[in-house]
Amino acid sequence: MSAPEVGYDIPATVGMAETEIETPALIVDLDAFERNIVKMRDFCAAAGVRLRAHGKMHKSADVAKHQISFGGSTGICCQKTAEAHAFARAGVDDILITNQVRGAAKIARLAEIAKIARLIVCCDDIANVAELSAAATAASVAIEVLVEIDCGAGRCGVTEPSAVVAIAKAIEAAPGLKFSGIQAYQGAMQHMERHEDRKAKFRIAVAMVTDAIAALKAEGIACETVSGGGTGSYALEAGSGVYTELQCGSYAFMDADYGRVLDSKGARLDRGEWENSLFILTSVMSHVKSDQAVCDAGLKAQSVDSGLPVIYGRDDVEYVECSDEHGVIADPKGALKINDRLRLVPGHCDPTCNLHDWYVGVRNGRVEALWPVTARGLSY
Amino acid sequence: MSAPEVGYDIPATVGMAETEIETPALIVDLDAFERNIVKMRDFCAAAGVRLRAHGKMHKSADVAKHQISFGGSTGICCQKTAEAHAFARAGVDDILITNQVRGAAKIARLAEIAKIARLIVCCDDIANVAELSAAATAASVAIEVLVEIDCGAGRCGVTEPSAVVAIAKAIEAAPGLKFSGIQAYQGAMQHMERHEDRKAKFRIAVAMVTDAIAALKAEGIACETVSGGGTGSYALEAGSGVYTELQCGSYAFMDADYGRVLDSKGARLDRGEWENSLFILTSVMSHVKSDQAVCDAGLKAQSVDSGLPVIYGRDDVEYVECSDEHGVIADPKGALKINDRLRLVPGHCDPTCNLHDWYVGVRNGRVEALWPVTARGLSY
Repeated sequence: MSAPEVGYDIPATVGMAETEIETPALIVDLDAFERNIVKMRDFCAAAGVRLRAHGKMHKSADVAKHQISFGGSTGICCQKTAEAHAFARAGVDDILITNQVRGAAKIARLAEIAKIARLIVCCDDIANVAELSAAATAASVAIEVLVEIDCGAGRCGVTEPSAVVAIAKAIEAAPGLKFSGIQAYQGAMQHMERHEDRKAKFRIAVAMVTDAIAALKAEGIACETVSGGGTGSYALEAGSGVYTELQCGSYAFMDADYGRVLDSKGARLDRGEWENSLFILTSVMSHVKSDQAVCDAGLKAQSVDSGLPVIYGRDDVEYVECSDEHGVIADPKGALKINDRLRLVPGHCDPTCNLHDWYVGVRNGRVEALWPVTARGLSY
Repeated sequence: MSAPEVGYDIPATVGMAETEIETPALIVDLDAFERNIVKMRDFCAAAGVRLRAHGKMHKSADVAKHQISFGGSTGICCQKTAEAHAFARAGVDDILITNQVRGAAKIARLAEIAKIARLIVCCDDIANVAELSAAATAASVAIEVLVEIDCGAGRCGVTEPSAVVAIAKAIEAAPGLKFSGIQAYQGAMQHMERHEDRKAKFRIAVAMVTDAIAALKAEGIACETVSGGGTGSYALEAGSGVYTELQCGSYAFMDADYGRVLDSKGARLDRGEWENSLFILTSVMSHVKSDQAVCDAGLKAQSVDSGLPVIYGRDDVEYVECSDEHGVIADPKGALKINDRLRLVPGHCDPTCNLHDWYVGVRNGRVEALWPVTARGLSY
């Protein structure tokens, strides 16, 4: 095998100056990243709640290991089976799949994961219980199961306490499975701008969870874990007295969409609680018109599902249009020159990270780390 | 090295039934794909125009080789340097980079590509000419150059005939370079719904190109190639008497956004001229609410920059919401069951293909081909 080429196999090498990184590249400001994860660790410790950082956001075993070793995370969350397998194979040994797993091949893979890691999975359908049990017993492993409640996201999950109880009982009775509690993530409220609006949605969610716990208790079933919460709501779940575990992901990197979310004091989330640590490094590659530059980061370097990227630290230029491989930048003062570099804060970190093969970790103007996006593309 | 695992390294194996493909997966209906590429071949032959299919759309050496071997394509277009290198290394030997290439490392890579393939690149800045020339002479290779005109896309390219002439002269005078003509792609008009609107934009573009050719001719400079055109406008360029080469990409696969574009007779492009041959195969993995299903293809399996996917061949169900790894499907009649499979027509084919590592080619219900997405992620 030939040595990896910068600008083809990899965007940079360790030790390189930041100015030599090939663009577009996904870069992590390691100081800001470390401050973010330590801050969440300290918050969770003070609040007396467990942190299980969401790995779907970054898909990187290196990021996960930082979160676990000194970011206070008890393990990680995943969203897909193959993603969980990639993390387990990379040495992460405590994984919650915050999702339903259906289909024989995927369920068989769950049992493989459970051979090398603690594995917890969600369930919203009593028919799924027998499938999970058969796979666990065939492989002689234990799989823990949370019943998923749809507490407002409008996606997977049951809504009636009676349904929670029925599925929990089926899990308790099923060989190879253990009922561990409730999954209750309200994804739809995370990006609401006003704190009061998120709080109103949270109240609905926590009432549903409280009812489910009471219904379980009435049947003599203990609910060890209540897992949920995201970067837009974590303080609410942490202070609820009901949630035992937070699933935040974006806090580690932030993105432009979370930058529009305001905290309880009306401050932007990325100007107070968290710092932007993730950027797309891009270069100017055309500037024919005096008031418009074109950069080399388009739709294949970032996802625009939650809006265009924001140019970090500049208010004289603005990213105004995104096509496959180009970004058009309004440059009214003609401030930019060919090969100038800009840091873009992507609109939405999760699908942006999934486009890249490598994170380039930078500190003090040099490349300090090159982390593979371990589970990139693993949506099975 | 262990054997690749279905549902982890690969979505399928050749010979497998279509029902066994792991989801979400990027599938190609090979019959429809072949009909599309033969149709474009025959169109170009009848119109007397060269076809150079755009490889940025599919990023697959296998697709490119089909287009070249029996799809009438003279070579391919690329958008990025590393992408072009990947195609050249895979054996494609005639490549046009329809873009500016700036930065020393990327320009040095151009010279590497030119050692193994015919290489043509665009230029919109006279300062770039000396950079390209230095790289070509240092590597003892020839690089062909097209001057890029911004004929309405509002991105890269010069607009004045005098600028075209000045750059062309600099290219002609530069060692290692050859002036080959003009790049004039009007990307902004491709997805306009009405044919008359596209035609109005085309008239502006072709007038600019005509002026540039006349200005070159007045200086005694021949313009061998005029390259441009896309799936939304190719018949216009082909009939212009000015364009010599078409750069269509999406015609081979189609997508939901091109499905909203109407041809000169008012028919949808995907119901007359071209067929949908590209799909995201997805499975239903939750169906707690009677009127709503959840499938396993979200933002990490498809790009929604040009709108949500359309469920192929079904008018009883609708894909209504997309999150990271889920799609919410309105199912008012409760027609869907767990593990049911659907074919999604992605909103925009180019950035969707770039999310996947493999194309699964299917015919008559079986997997016939597994093609790597050769240049996936190569945005350098």
